[in-house]
Amino acid sequence: MSTYPTSLGTSSADEIRLLGQDLTADLMGEVGFGELAFWLVAMRRPTPSEVRVFEAVLVALADHGFTPTAIAARLTYLSAPDSLQGALAAGLLGGGSRFLGVTEDCGAFLDAVVTDLGDDLPTTDEQWDAVALDAVRRTKEAGRFVPGLGHPVHKQGDPRTPVLVRIAEEEGLRGPHLRLFEAVGRVHEQVLGKRLPLNGAGVCGAALADLGLPVELLRGFALLARAAGLLGQLAEERRRPIGMDVYLSVDRHAEYVDPQS
Amino acid sequence: MSTYPTSLGTSSADEIRLLGQDLTADLMGEVGFGELAFWLVAMRRPTPSEVRVFEAVLVALADHGFTPTAIAARLTYLSAPDSLQGALAAGLLGGGSRFLGVTEDCGAFLDAVVTDLGDDLPTTDEQWDAVALDAVRRTKEAGRFVPGLGHPVHKQGDPRTPVLVRIAEEEGLRGPHLRLFEAVGRVHEQVLGKRLPLNGAGVCGAALADLGLPVELLRGFALLARAAGLLGQLAEERRRPIGMDVYLSVDRHAEYVDPQS
Amino acid sequence: MSTYPTSLGTSSADEIRLLGQDLTADLMGEVGFGELAFWLVAMRRPTPSEVRVFEAVLVALADHGFTPTAIAARLTYLSAPDSLQGALAAGLLGGGSRFLGVTEDCGAFLDAVVTDLGDDLPTTDEQWDAVALDAVRRTKEAGRFVPGLGHPVHKQGDPRTPVLVRIAEEEGLRGPHLRLFEAVGRVHEQVLGKRLPLNGAGVCGAALADLGLPVELLRGFALLARAAGLLGQLAEERRRPIGMDVYLSVDRHAEYVDPQS
Amino acid sequence: MSTYPTSLGTSSADEIRLLGQDLTADLMGEVGFGELAFWLVAMRRPTPSEVRVFEAVLVALADHGFTPTAIAARLTYLSAPDSLQGALAAGLLGGGSRFLGVTEDCGAFLDAVVTDLGDDLPTTDEQWDAVALDAVRRTKEAGRFVPGLGHPVHKQGDPRTPVLVRIAEEEGLRGPHLRLFEAVGRVHEQVLGKRLPLNGAGVCGAALADLGLPVELLRGFALLARAAGLLGQLAEERRRPIGMDVYLSVDRHAEYVDPQS
Repeated sequence: MSTYPTSLGTSSADEIRLLGQDLTADLMGEVGFGELAFWLVAMRRPTPSEVRVFEAVLVALADHGFTPTAIAARLTYLSAPDSLQGALAAGLLGGGSRFLGVTEDCGAFLDAVVTDLGDDLPTTDEQWDAVALDAVRRTKEAGRFVPGLGHPVHKQGDPRTPVLVRIAEEEGLRGPHLRLFEAVGRVHEQVLGKRLPLNGAGVCGAALADLGLPVELLRGFALLARAAGLLGQLAEERRRPIGMDVYLSVDRHAEYVDPQS
Repeated sequence: MSTYPTSLGTSSADEIRLLGQDLTADLMGEVGFGELAFWLVAMRRPTPSEVRVFEAVLVALADHGFTPTAIAARLTYLSAPDSLQGALAAGLLGGGSRFLGVTEDCGAFLDAVVTDLGDDLPTTDEQWDAVALDAVRRTKEAGRFVPGLGHPVHKQGDPRTPVLVRIAEEEGLRGPHLRLFEAVGRVHEQVLGKRLPLNGAGVCGAALADLGLPVELLRGFALLARAAGLLGQLAEERRRPIGMDVYLSVDRHAEYVDPQS
Repeated sequence: MSTYPTSLGTSSADEIRLLGQDLTADLMGEVGFGELAFWLVAMRRPTPSEVRVFEAVLVALADHGFTPTAIAARLTYLSAPDSLQGALAAGLLGGGSRFLGVTEDCGAFLDAVVTDLGDDLPTTDEQWDAVALDAVRRTKEAGRFVPGLGHPVHKQGDPRTPVLVRIAEEEGLRGPHLRLFEAVGRVHEQVLGKRLPLNGAGVCGAALADLGLPVELLRGFALLARAAGLLGQLAEERRRPIGMDVYLSVDRHAEYVDPQS
Repeated sequence: MSTYPTSLGTSSADEIRLLGQDLTADLMGEVGFGELAFWLVAMRRPTPSEVRVFEAVLVALADHGFTPTAIAARLTYLSAPDSLQGALAAGLLGGGSRFLGVTEDCGAFLDAVVTDLGDDLPTTDEQWDAVALDAVRRTKEAGRFVPGLGHPVHKQGDPRTPVLVRIAEEEGLRGPHLRLFEAVGRVHEQVLGKRLPLNGAGVCGAALADLGLPVELLRGFALLARAAGLLGQLAEERRRPIGMDVYLSVDRHAEYVDPQS
């Protein structure tokens, strides 16, 4: 009979262990929740600087108001108020390519470029600009979008972007992914012919990648952040519901159209 | 045309607001993630003491190893690795009455008793014991279980319980729900005829209720904590997968039985 | 090493078996899909009459237009078009107590009464009326609602109810659950003081219970029916999307309110 | 105020319409469930021959025993027995790229080739072989897998494949997608250097594409079929549970490993 290896939670009759620590002696009351979430994925305890940047990202991504996912969660809660987990899950299921995937796509895009550079990282903005220009050009030639550019509302600049760069700088964590992302912001107009803002989802991906978190799982942190936001949405739906009004506003304006038309 | 009221996220072209705050100026880098999660539900910023107790609860509930929900999430990831959100959602959907609902059930049970007491709260352990004895008796007479009692592994005592009580005491937050829960621990044997441990899920519910969080949503905090744990499980499934082995261990030992048998 | 018993699917290198049958020789092309769904739960092949009633129920429950669950599925698809399974799952998660649970609740309510009658079943409408009157009275005295009564739109009568009763009658399957449900329709006004229609979800629960399907799983058939309806909704969302309009109609009419107000 | 167009369900106080039909007069008791599911997506009523092929596909895909998705659904039901919809949704969430996506991938692969042929379709097996040879070659050169080839258990041939081809032939629906798929089965060895079986998921995709169903939604039919299978799994989990044994077999064989090791 084989065993199932894990470095996460295990327990015996008188002890609960997590990440190789004694849960009650070493972790409860000693580490923050964001700190633990980082640790659970990265398999190392983050420094206080890393925690500050990481939690700034989670705070930035937690809630964006009446997004499709927030509305879906509220409508699901309206239909099935007996199952809070179902409403939360329904909201998270919208965390796919379009509205929540930018964080991961941007982190992965930047990381591929940075990884290609190997140990020979640029040191000046001019050098980063050259790297960014090449990356944006190749992306455009391949017929793909550069992730992290553009925002439907914040057309003149996403206010989260400079703030997260500043926080990372304060903590000594403005690394190659953020440097490259900033360079993309400076040079993309030369290639794409228009100036787009560096969006908040993108800068969060860059900052998470600079923290050394696995780029294939960056979407997971956006989902964790969103779980907190969705809880807030569902708590508000209990206090001041809108789900029934949304439903009726759609249902009452339904109009039958002949499928052949 | 009616409007949709919200106290959560709203944004204009140059500002993102959340909870009435400027997201970038007031929240990012200024509040922790657990702190924000509390705020999003309670509609008030918690004190540092409240944050410490709250995060201790989230840390306690984040991961319990190979629970059914963790296995379900890993198997879903095995089948659909293209959809991290689906695997996370599948894991959370197990957050129902049986394995994750104790936190909410216990908080609600204690809160009903505490609410009945009105302003006339006991001050001594003896007084709490009398309240607890009455509550346990009435619960048993109604044919219901007292939530928060018993644990399949930690039969001699759940190590999380005294630690969370101690942390709450340190922060001046050992309130009526925890006091009552402790009293239940002292007196239930008189009614039930056997001594059961106060379990960790239960004490977490008591502590959350003492923080003034809405008891109908306590399951939501267990789900948020579990979201972090599930991310850790899925990150580990990428690094050191077990899903295929679990699947094969079941499939290869399937045995057809005649349904009439 | 223990084995895992099952009466469903098993396979060897050259054969696939399902329900004790050879999938390719006995089932594919030989049984209908609804027929198989019935068999998978009931562990017996339904008669053609049973299939007709069963499929009439599934057809009745498949789609109700822009329900909260249909809108949730469409919004999830808008956010994550890469994951059809996520959008479908999100839609099904609304299949809880409020909008889709009536079928199960009504079936369970009727079944409890019928089971209490034992072998001594009424034979005339008058006798059923007496049983129904007693059941409605006891339900009201217990402070509970009689499930299956009332409809927000079809206030003068749900058109599905008489049609399903007629189909069951045609097939010789108008059994005690349907008879009792009809009696509830005749007598409830005496107890409740107002006349309510017997709704479609309720009559479906009665018909499924008369087919001998387990009442604890009736919600499952409503979910199966809804899965087909949600596929239709998602196919239409691809052809003629409304999700973005729904989202914007909510988001653009968001209004911040002070949480203290 | 704009309206929301739909060709699916609409209702007034005394009528329920679906697909432009009167639900109660035209559909209930008159159309089968599989027939309706086809109609809901294709926006046209299928012929009896089309229904037979379509339902044969659904029957073929409904249940494959203890798949990862079936186990995930059972474990979710173990944790949250109060929410059948959550267990069903958890099972469907595994319907992604790896275990359930082959149907869609194969249909899309074949459809791209068939579409390129335009009106100039082959008529003999030799002509189809030439088309297939070219398609397999280009796929291999692009470094991609040919979907629908190979099976972990049915290495000498998947029994579903010839049966579904035969049923389609009987109904006059063995169209270009099935013809091409069969040709792939004959020629792939020349390119890939090994003989692989045409698997059941693949032939189902080919048959659905020949029915004119949208290839981007073929996964949806696999999910619908699986919904019925999962209901069967959950009904069996109630009658003869295995979830707890699966959970314990994993949990009791957990072994802590140092993450650095």
